[in-house]
Amino acid sequence: MDRQLRIVIIGGGACGPKTAARARRLDAAARICMVQDEELISYAGCGLPYYISDVVKSRNALLVRDAASFKKLSNVDVLTGTRVESIDRAGHKITLMELATERKYSLDYDKLVIATGSSPVVPPIKGIDLKGVHVLKRVPDADEIRALINESISKKAVIVGAGLIGIEMAEALSARGLEVTVVEALNKVLPGILDEEISDLLTDHIKSKGVTLKLGRKVVEFRGEGERVSHAVTDKETAEGDVVIFAIGVRPNSKLAKDAGLETGPFGDIVVNECLQTSDPDIYSGGDCVANVSIITGKKMFVPMGSTANKHGHVIAANITGGSEKFPGIVGTACVKVFDFNTGRVGLGEKQALDAGFEAVTALVPGPDKPGSSPGSREVIIKLIVDKKTRRILGGQGTGPGEVVKRIDVLATAITMGMTVDILADLDLAYAPPYNSALDVLHHAANLVRNKLEGRTTGITPADVKKKISDGDDFALLDVRSKFEADRTWIEAPQVRLLPQPKLYDDMDKLDDERETVVVCRRGGRAYQACCTLKNAGFRDIKFVEGSLICWGADDVCGEQVL
Amino acid sequence: MDRQLRIVIIGGGACGPKTAARARRLDAAARICMVQDEELISYAGCGLPYYISDVVKSRNALLVRDAASFKKLSNVDVLTGTRVESIDRAGHKITLMELATERKYSLDYDKLVIATGSSPVVPPIKGIDLKGVHVLKRVPDADEIRALINESISKKAVIVGAGLIGIEMAEALSARGLEVTVVEALNKVLPGILDEEISDLLTDHIKSKGVTLKLGRKVVEFRGEGERVSHAVTDKETAEGDVVIFAIGVRPNSKLAKDAGLETGPFGDIVVNECLQTSDPDIYSGGDCVANVSIITGKKMFVPMGSTANKHGHVIAANITGGSEKFPGIVGTACVKVFDFNTGRVGLGEKQALDAGFEAVTALVPGPDKPGSSPGSREVIIKLIVDKKTRRILGGQGTGPGEVVKRIDVLATAITMGMTVDILADLDLAYAPPYNSALDVLHHAANLVRNKLEGRTTGITPADVKKKISDGDDFALLDVRSKFEADRTWIEAPQVRLLPQPKLYDDMDKLDDERETVVVCRRGGRAYQACCTLKNAGFRDIKFVEGSLICWGADDVCGEQVL
Repeated sequence: MDRQLRIVIIGGGACGPKTAARARRLDAAARICMVQDEELISYAGCGLPYYISDVVKSRNALLVRDAASFKKLSNVDVLTGTRVESIDRAGHKITLMELATERKYSLDYDKLVIATGSSPVVPPIKGIDLKGVHVLKRVPDADEIRALINESISKKAVIVGAGLIGIEMAEALSARGLEVTVVEALNKVLPGILDEEISDLLTDHIKSKGVTLKLGRKVVEFRGEGERVSHAVTDKETAEGDVVIFAIGVRPNSKLAKDAGLETGPFGDIVVNECLQTSDPDIYSGGDCVANVSIITGKKMFVPMGSTANKHGHVIAANITGGSEKFPGIVGTACVKVFDFNTGRVGLGEKQALDAGFEAVTALVPGPDKPGSSPGSREVIIKLIVDKKTRRILGGQGTGPGEVVKRIDVLATAITMGMTVDILADLDLAYAPPYNSALDVLHHAANLVRNKLEGRTTGITPADVKKKISDGDDFALLDVRSKFEADRTWIEAPQVRLLPQPKLYDDMDKLDDERETVVVCRRGGRAYQACCTLKNAGFRDIKFVEGSLICWGADDVCGEQVL
Repeated sequence: MDRQLRIVIIGGGACGPKTAARARRLDAAARICMVQDEELISYAGCGLPYYISDVVKSRNALLVRDAASFKKLSNVDVLTGTRVESIDRAGHKITLMELATERKYSLDYDKLVIATGSSPVVPPIKGIDLKGVHVLKRVPDADEIRALINESISKKAVIVGAGLIGIEMAEALSARGLEVTVVEALNKVLPGILDEEISDLLTDHIKSKGVTLKLGRKVVEFRGEGERVSHAVTDKETAEGDVVIFAIGVRPNSKLAKDAGLETGPFGDIVVNECLQTSDPDIYSGGDCVANVSIITGKKMFVPMGSTANKHGHVIAANITGGSEKFPGIVGTACVKVFDFNTGRVGLGEKQALDAGFEAVTALVPGPDKPGSSPGSREVIIKLIVDKKTRRILGGQGTGPGEVVKRIDVLATAITMGMTVDILADLDLAYAPPYNSALDVLHHAANLVRNKLEGRTTGITPADVKKKISDGDDFALLDVRSKFEADRTWIEAPQVRLLPQPKLYDDMDKLDDERETVVVCRRGGRAYQACCTLKNAGFRDIKFVEGSLICWGADDVCGEQVL
C-alpha cells in the first residue's frame, strides 16, 4: 500500500483497544484512531461490582491503560469525550463531536470498526429518574453508586433483576452492610442462565446470606422522599431501599450502525459474518454490539462478554490489516460468584436443548471437588445435559462452595469439540489428592447419563419427589443413609422409611417389590447403587433421587461430610 | 445363562474393587470373588504422602471400604491376605495360598480379571536392605515410614528419585521437620514428566524450601550405623539421612500373567486390547499392570495412575458381564503439588514431540491466574506445544503458585479431541473477575504460538539467553521494564540496556538496528510488543525472551505484581 491505511475505531471499552493494539503490531505504518464518548478507555467493566464492594481495593486497578499511554505504547491516537454522530459510508468518513466543546468535525477512514458495546435496558417506569436509582455499566456509575451507599439513610437497597450483574450487586451491597432485596420478574434467580435444579440451590444460598428474594414480581413504580428514591413498588408489594440498582439486561448500541444503513439483527445487534465484517465490507464490528454464533446450534445468540469482546478485537485487527481470520463462535460459557457458591454454566440448558430440537438426557451429581480427606475439600453440584441421539454433550451447569469453574471450562472445551458423553466418562483429567479425586464429578455425571441412556437406571429430581409428597402419592421413599445421618436430617413425609444401605440385602424382603419405590441418600451415589440392587432383585418401579438430599435443600451443602 | 457367572478378580487396589462393584450392579446373580494379598483393600494409595505429612489427619480417611462392607454393600466375596500362586487357563481356575496359614486351594472362574498393580523398582544396591531404607506403595509402608520419622536421630532424610512420589515425599518429610536431600540420576526434577523450562522453575522453588537437590547423581551404596541406614553414597558425594525413601519408579506386576503364558509388552505390562482383554479372551487386565494407548500417537505408554485404574475397572466390569465397552486411551495427564507450586502436564513434552516425528512450535507464557486486582491472584507459567503441520495441540505443562491444574484439564480435554491452536485461541472459557481474566493465559499462549507459526515474531528461552551471556556473545539485551522494576531486579550482564517501553518510539533511533537485539521484560508481554515495534521499524535480528524474568529465575514468582 502506497499510503498509510487509515483505521478508525469507535469505542474504547474492550474490543476497541484490543483491535487498535493488535492492528498496530500488524501494521507499523497505519494511522490508527480510536474514538470514545467517555473520558476513560480500556477499563475492566466486569470488575465494577468488586470495586463497589471494596474487594478490589483501588479504582486505578480497574484502569488498564489511558489515552496517553496508549499513544506511547502503541502509537494509537485516542479521542476521548468524543461522540461519533454519523457514518458516511459512501464518503468513507465519520462525523464526530467533542462533547466538552460541542465542536463537530469529520474523520476519514479506510477501515472502520464499530465497537460501541451495549447499554443497560431502562424502561420508562414511573420514578426511574429519582436520585438513587442507578444502572451499572461504566466507571462513573460505580463512583456514583459508591456515593449513594455512603449517603444511604435506610441502609436498604433494592436490586431489580436477578441476572449476573444483579446477583453480583446483591453480594456487593450486602458486603457494604446494606439490607438487600432482589426483585426479579421471572420465577428464579439467574433465569435464562441456569436450570431450576442449580438455580434453586442458589436461591437457598442467597437467602441464607440475608438477602430477600422477590421472584415473579415486576417493579411498577419507584417512590421517593423528595428527590431521592425510598421504595420500589412491585405488582405484589413495596420494598424499601434508597439505593436501587437497575439491572434487567443490556442491549447492543447499534443506533449509529442502523442509521448508517448497516444490517441489524433480532437482538438489535449489528449483523456480522464470521470475519466480523458488517454488511459494509469496509466496516467491522465486535464486542457487545454484535451477536455470536452458537457452536452447538449454529444459530446467533446474544451473550455479551468481555472475554468474547477481546477475542473479537484480535480477529478484527487481522482482517482490517490485510489478514484473514475468523471467529468460530461461542458456547455460552458464563460464571459468577454468588456469595460462597462458585457458579457456572455452558452450552444449552435442559429446556434450551428441548427447544432446539434435542432429546436431552441429564444427570444431577453432587460430589466433593477433591478427596474428602484433602484439606479444603468442598462440595460441587453438576448438571450435565446430553443429546440422546448423538450422545454429544450439549450443556453443563454447576454450583457449590467447591471448584465449579474448572469443570465448566472442561465442559466448554468438550462442547466446542463435539465430545460425546462416552469420551467424557474416560477423559484423562489430572489426578492427585490435592487437586481431585481419582474420578472427577464429571466422570460420575457422564456415567450416570450413560446408565440412563442404556436404560440401566431411572432418576427423579428432588423437586419431582417433593411434588409427589405434597400430592400425597402412594409410594415408598427409601432412605438408605446411616442412622447417624438420618438423626441429623430427615425428610418429614409419611412415605419415608429408613433402611441403611448395608442392611439392604438382609432386609430387602421386608419391602414391597410391587410398590413404586424412590431411593434417596445424601448425594445420590448410595441411592443409585441401592436402586440397582433392588431393580436386579425384581422391584418393578424403582428410581433414585438425583442429587438426593444435597439438591433437596435438606442438607447443608457447606457442612461437614458425613458418610 | 443358566448358572451363575463366576468372576474372579486378582487385586484389591483401585481397578479390582471398581470392577467388582460395577460387575455386581450389572449382574445381580454373578458369583464375584476378589483376591488380595494384603490385608487392606480399596485404599487411596495416592494419598499416602499426605498421611505421612499429617495433611491427611487420619489413616482411616484413606480406607475407602473393607472386606466386610464390600460383602454387605455389593455382595462381593473378598479374600484378603491371600496370594494367587498360578493361573490354569485351560482349566479355568487359579491356585491361591492363604498367607497366614499357607493353606493352598483352587478357585474356578469363567472370567478372570488381573488387577495386580505395580511395584516399586528396587535395584540390588549395596545396603538397600538396611533398616530405614523404604519404598512407598502400600499403607503399611506409610505406617513404617511414619515410625522411621519418629525414630530418626539425625532428622535428615534422603529421597532417591525426583519423580512424582519422590517430590511429594520431599514435601511430606520437610513438613515433618526433616532436612531433606533428593538424589536424582537425571539432570532435572520430574524428568520425563516436565520440560526444562518448567522443571527449572520447580528446581528453584524446591531449593527455596530448604531441600537439597543432587541432580545427575546415582546412588551407589547405602551405609549404616548398626542395622540402620545413616548415609546414601552417590557417585559424587555422601548424603546423610537415617530415613531413606526409594522412589525411582514402578513396574507392572505381571509375573503371574507371564507365567500363565499371557502376552506381555515392552514395559513388562500385560498386553490388553481396547476392551482391556488379554491374549486370553476370558482374562482381562487393568490398572497399573497394563500400558495404555496414547490418544496422540496411537502408541502404548506406561503411565500408572489411580484415575486410569478406576476407569479400567468400569470398562472391564461391562465386558465380563456381557457388555462391550472400550477404553479410548490416555493423554498422559499428571499433576503434583510441589510445596507452593501447583504443577501439571499433559500430552507430549517438546522433546517427546520431536522424537515422535512432529515439528513442535512452543510458547512459554507466564500470567496471573485471574486479574491482578482480584484477591488471591497468583502467577501461573504455561508451556504450550503445538504441531507445526496440523496446528494440533500436542502438549502443555505448567507450574506456579496459581491455578495451574484447571489449565491442564482444559488442555487434556482439548488434546483428547484433537483441538488446533486456532480453536484454543478463541475458546469460550469462563470469565468473571473472581475466576479469570478476560483472556486466559492459555489464550495468550495460543496466540503466541500462532504468531510464531505465521513468522510474526521470534522467541528465545531464558536458558538460551543465559548461554549467550556466558558465551560473551555480541548482542543487545534490551530491558523494556520500568525504572522502578529495574531497580528491584536486574540482569547483570554487559549486554543489558534499560529502555522502558513507553520511551521506545522516542528513543528507538539510539539503538543499532543492525545488531542482534533480544528484548526482555517481566513476563514477556511487553517484550513481545516491543519486539513487534522494532521489527516493524526495520530491526534485522530481533527476538523476545519468552517468559522473560519470571522464567529466568531472576524475579520472585510468588512476589507482588509490579507493572
